[in-house]
Amino acid sequence: MRLRNVKNANDFINTSPYIIKDYESYKGKYKKMFNNNNEIHLEIGMGKGDFIIEKAKKNPQINFIGIEKFDSVIVRALQKLDRIGEIIPNLKLIRMDAKEIEKVFFKEIDTIYLNFSDPWPKNRHANRRLTSTEFLKRYDSIFKNNKRIEMKTDNRKLFEFSIISFIDYNYKIEDISLDLYSDNLEDNVETEYEKKFHEKGFTIYKITVKK
Amino acid sequence: MRLRNVKNANDFINTSPYIIKDYESYKGKYKKMFNNNNEIHLEIGMGKGDFIIEKAKKNPQINFIGIEKFDSVIVRALQKLDRIGEIIPNLKLIRMDAKEIEKVFFKEIDTIYLNFSDPWPKNRHANRRLTSTEFLKRYDSIFKNNKRIEMKTDNRKLFEFSIISFIDYNYKIEDISLDLYSDNLEDNVETEYEKKFHEKGFTIYKITVKK
Repeated sequence: MRLRNVKNANDFINTSPYIIKDYESYKGKYKKMFNNNNEIHLEIGMGKGDFIIEKAKKNPQINFIGIEKFDSVIVRALQKLDRIGEIIPNLKLIRMDAKEIEKVFFKEIDTIYLNFSDPWPKNRHANRRLTSTEFLKRYDSIFKNNKRIEMKTDNRKLFEFSIISFIDYNYKIEDISLDLYSDNLEDNVETEYEKKFHEKGFTIYKITVKK
Repeated sequence: MRLRNVKNANDFINTSPYIIKDYESYKGKYKKMFNNNNEIHLEIGMGKGDFIIEKAKKNPQINFIGIEKFDSVIVRALQKLDRIGEIIPNLKLIRMDAKEIEKVFFKEIDTIYLNFSDPWPKNRHANRRLTSTEFLKRYDSIFKNNKRIEMKTDNRKLFEFSIISFIDYNYKIEDISLDLYSDNLEDNVETEYEKKFHEKGFTIYKITVKK
């Protein structure tokens, strides 16, 4: 089924127990919403959700929030969750634009995941990249104490740009792989893009930064 | 002709106008030796010299010094220089161990080149890598004002290690390429290894850092 043919996307989104609708009202209070003191990890641009659903299932002691701009994509994640049957209590999703992130979270995120983000290849669109200085500034106010970002991509130019951007913003490198599938993949959770691109023989890059 | 069969290596080295023999006596005075105020660029582990000879020919306004530990390798560079005929005035070579670098230079180097350095793959040999903290410390005292290092390698693990090492030592990234031969190669000068490895289809990595 192709994305544009998803029927009743709104029905799915409006009735799902995973979707947080009044998300701005939880700003600074997401810990309360999850009703525990566990870490909160955020995936920006969760797409069809393979990564964050798997992460949440594997790590019940961590709360996960996925955000995604497009109805037609988020509904795919909801369909997958629907098929699982039982509710994953440590997972919530928000339909929103990443640009608005400072309105939604405040000093409560421990790790941000950026997986196969839009590379915005044109220089004049550089500040739309999720690793641009503009976005790194936005992330500052949503991180709790330590800042930690995990990024994966198959886009070499975006990866090169991101390394420089992180370092200029005074992040240090916790780990880097310039060919993820040649390394130890023990803890790797695949995204749907990653699976497809790796199978096509593309190099997958990963970096984890912190400050 | 294989390296170990080079005859009369010592003759070549002892009579070459390129070799600086009493190199410790020039410490802090290399500008004087070149008899001009131009920048001095240093290649550590110059191997058979393809890179530094070409660099020196293309950039007469910069002084180049190549250092190399092994007689049998440096003699190959001397043979090449011999065939060129006329003297390249902005090029000098030193037969020495990189570990001794602080005894030889003092506040006079503008750029260091590290090309296809020994990766020392075992963790217990990490401090022998030319981009380890141990070596970055040694470089501190030989740089004039700004510190600038250009590194190329085909060894992914060495490159990953080096990025982290540079950043931990507070270098910033001026430029990075995770696939040099897919980028603009206008100013690229090949080393003998680079040529061979690129032809075999290996990815060539390059990073330029400064502080």
